[in-house]
Amino acid sequence: MVDLITKRFDCVLFDLGNTLIVQENPGTPYEELKVQILPGVQKLLDELQGKIKLGIVSNTKTITAADIQAKLATVGLDKYFSCIIATAEFGTHKPDPAPIKAAIEQLQCNADRMLYVGDIETDKQAAVAAGAHFAYAGPNLYESIKQYALHSNSAFDRAIHTRPTFSQEHFDAVRKEFDGLAKPVGSLGKLEIIAAQIAGISHSHTPTVDPAAIALFGADHGSAVDISVTPLPQAIKGMMLEAMGDNKAAVSVLADVADVYVQIINVGAIADSKSPHVRNERVASGTADIRTDDAMSDAVVRAALEVGAQTAERLIAGGSRCLVTGEVGIANTTPSAALIAHFTQTTAEQVTGRGSGIDDQTYVRKVEIVAKLIAKTKNEKDPIKTLAQIGGIEIAALAGYILRAASLQIPVVLDGVITLAAATVAQAINPEINQFLIAGHSSSEPGSRIAITHLHLQPILDLELRLGEGTGALLAIPIIRSACQALSRMARIADLL
Amino acid sequence: MVDLITKRFDCVLFDLGNTLIVQENPGTPYEELKVQILPGVQKLLDELQGKIKLGIVSNTKTITAADIQAKLATVGLDKYFSCIIATAEFGTHKPDPAPIKAAIEQLQCNADRMLYVGDIETDKQAAVAAGAHFAYAGPNLYESIKQYALHSNSAFDRAIHTRPTFSQEHFDAVRKEFDGLAKPVGSLGKLEIIAAQIAGISHSHTPTVDPAAIALFGADHGSAVDISVTPLPQAIKGMMLEAMGDNKAAVSVLADVADVYVQIINVGAIADSKSPHVRNERVASGTADIRTDDAMSDAVVRAALEVGAQTAERLIAGGSRCLVTGEVGIANTTPSAALIAHFTQTTAEQVTGRGSGIDDQTYVRKVEIVAKLIAKTKNEKDPIKTLAQIGGIEIAALAGYILRAASLQIPVVLDGVITLAAATVAQAINPEINQFLIAGHSSSEPGSRIAITHLHLQPILDLELRLGEGTGALLAIPIIRSACQALSRMARIADLL
Repeated sequence: MVDLITKRFDCVLFDLGNTLIVQENPGTPYEELKVQILPGVQKLLDELQGKIKLGIVSNTKTITAADIQAKLATVGLDKYFSCIIATAEFGTHKPDPAPIKAAIEQLQCNADRMLYVGDIETDKQAAVAAGAHFAYAGPNLYESIKQYALHSNSAFDRAIHTRPTFSQEHFDAVRKEFDGLAKPVGSLGKLEIIAAQIAGISHSHTPTVDPAAIALFGADHGSAVDISVTPLPQAIKGMMLEAMGDNKAAVSVLADVADVYVQIINVGAIADSKSPHVRNERVASGTADIRTDDAMSDAVVRAALEVGAQTAERLIAGGSRCLVTGEVGIANTTPSAALIAHFTQTTAEQVTGRGSGIDDQTYVRKVEIVAKLIAKTKNEKDPIKTLAQIGGIEIAALAGYILRAASLQIPVVLDGVITLAAATVAQAINPEINQFLIAGHSSSEPGSRIAITHLHLQPILDLELRLGEGTGALLAIPIIRSACQALSRMARIADLL
Repeated sequence: MVDLITKRFDCVLFDLGNTLIVQENPGTPYEELKVQILPGVQKLLDELQGKIKLGIVSNTKTITAADIQAKLATVGLDKYFSCIIATAEFGTHKPDPAPIKAAIEQLQCNADRMLYVGDIETDKQAAVAAGAHFAYAGPNLYESIKQYALHSNSAFDRAIHTRPTFSQEHFDAVRKEFDGLAKPVGSLGKLEIIAAQIAGISHSHTPTVDPAAIALFGADHGSAVDISVTPLPQAIKGMMLEAMGDNKAAVSVLADVADVYVQIINVGAIADSKSPHVRNERVASGTADIRTDDAMSDAVVRAALEVGAQTAERLIAGGSRCLVTGEVGIANTTPSAALIAHFTQTTAEQVTGRGSGIDDQTYVRKVEIVAKLIAKTKNEKDPIKTLAQIGGIEIAALAGYILRAASLQIPVVLDGVITLAAATVAQAINPEINQFLIAGHSSSEPGSRIAITHLHLQPILDLELRLGEGTGALLAIPIIRSACQALSRMARIADLL
């Protein structure tokens, strides 16, 4: 959470009474004042200490900054603050912004990089008048500031700062419930595990996937401008986006059969789609050529992660209980292979496949590119910076989508190697994310098997698909649905006897 | 086809002109009469010769039996007939039944075991008046008699006497059509093969599974009266039939999700089901105990095959384009294992699994029973007699169902080991039937894998189900549907360029 604060602010100022410590009755003599630290204060200050400048601006009648310092020292709170202003000695009181402005000057900070935290309207008026930001202190200061940081920030930040929990209790309860249904124990095989997993993800005794939605992220890749890694020109991807908009792509047909709502997001193609059914949310016009440059800047990665996370929020806010992953991007098996190799510590030869169908010579070139990308990112510890170097834009969007869905306790169904690459990125960001993932299909790309093993997943299908677009994941949906509905609708043995 | 005739008749009498040979103009002098054999006559007579008594009853003005004999000798037709009656020398003409009655007497046959074949109403009147059966001679005598035999007989007879053909042309055309769709060549993997197979089965360029139906055959097994082979009492199966009638069984829920119409047929439980949604078509009250007796009589097998074939006809007549197999029967993995072992020439140890979940001791007893059944039927060449010895009633019904669906060029989706056992029986009856079968699910029973290999099938799913009821097959339906709809609804590359 702290990084959300440090990212936006250089200093944080606090009101004192009812913000950091219990406010005593007005008129209590200084000697009798007792310092009682409010909940969450210690934790917040401990986390912020050393990372950001901290100060106090308190309205006082007679008490001075030195008095405050001395009282705080009785509970060890004095050490955190490099600036304390008591209005009694300053001369004017909040809501006059002057005391806060003075603190800003003392701390050598810009007003718009300062957060003032207080408990009453007067505090807010003073902060705003000083050109600073304001946050209310709630019953627990740590939680209040965390919520402030989250909700005034990006969907992706909300994703990575809301840690989801898997409920083993609901998982076990559903396993047991299946034993009581009118059938031999365990005879629904993997269906019983699937339904139990969704129960654990959603903390529900009645797991469901309905309504389900698929987000399909499309983007272009600089390496696709010549045919050295793919037989398909970039232009094909544009046409595919149009076909999807016309409901004539594989994803459209399979989503219809599986009763899954489709949302198509152009997150980084070289041009906007003209189809009214495609959302143009381009954060860049394709990646750079990864043979010579980084795929994209950190800012573009962040923007793509944000589009993905926002998409998950929008679909879940619309009622979706299960999110399916899809993508379209010519040449995107190359960065996928490199990402999987990076996060699973495997080699270019192990992860590289033939994508949409390439000849031996092209295959050799592809392995070389993947090997170079692996070498280039070898010592990079930050998954997001790795993404920036390797790409692609749609993979970044998928990672944001996966992380945000999981953070909202919604199961994510993975498709082929590109979505699996995005899942390995997500797993590097949150190592527990795999509990929220379902592998719809075991793709024939070698990297897919490596990623599936790395994520400890059990694919539902193996139909030798290598199309992407979410097709493998969509085919698994009726099976997952059957698992959930068997649980909720079948007779129980006890009811029949 | 001949056995259909010999089963019902001891002799066949023919009219001559326009039935066996071209009718000359009335008044043509005997010397000038030319014998021209009509289409299909030679083939029919060749097949019937030696298996049934043949004769001729012909209305003549002056010509005698000896004249007919002499004329037929000129084309080698005389040798087939052990009785020729020419009405000119007999004294009365058809429609008087006397000449036919005389032939019946000469051939020492009962009237109701005699078929008279002619081309005009007079022939029919004479035959019916003689108490015999009548068939019209059409443009091709062989085909006419075949159709007569088929349509006046059982659905199962129609199944085994209508040989279906698989259209390689349609299979190839659909494979090629997939190559032109807006996706990399072959990237829909097994889906492309599945759609092509259905095209080949149905001789259609637009293969479909919709509407699809499942028939679920339920029956009891004498061996289930004690717990030596199964932990579940026979009573459970009765309850399961009731649960199915209430739409609360696994099959009901999964069929609903897969949009498949369900028909439940009690073909041999120990009692009728009280559910209004279960068809009671019991041909026996369970099988005998196969540890000591044959499972059932030949008559019961025939009746069960007939129920199965009639069910297929009824569902297909109702519009179904794909038939799914299902069954419920406590202890039916035992006869299934024995049937698979018999037809695949494997051992009891190889085919026997743990069914609904049995302990080691019970497993040993089960292997012993299977071994005894294999030994007992070792030299039996007739698949139907093998079925009678091993059972069960629902397996016989499934075999009839599978054969009749295939004979009407309708794809059949198989479920677990019991339906696979029925398919091996069907394959023994018609070795080409496997082209019309789709293995929905690879069951965890060992016999299932052996049967699947024997039938050269590629299972669509492997979800470790061992429930039966058609559940594995039903889960495959949305995948098969997706394959067909991808073909018919996806954009073609040519249309996008």
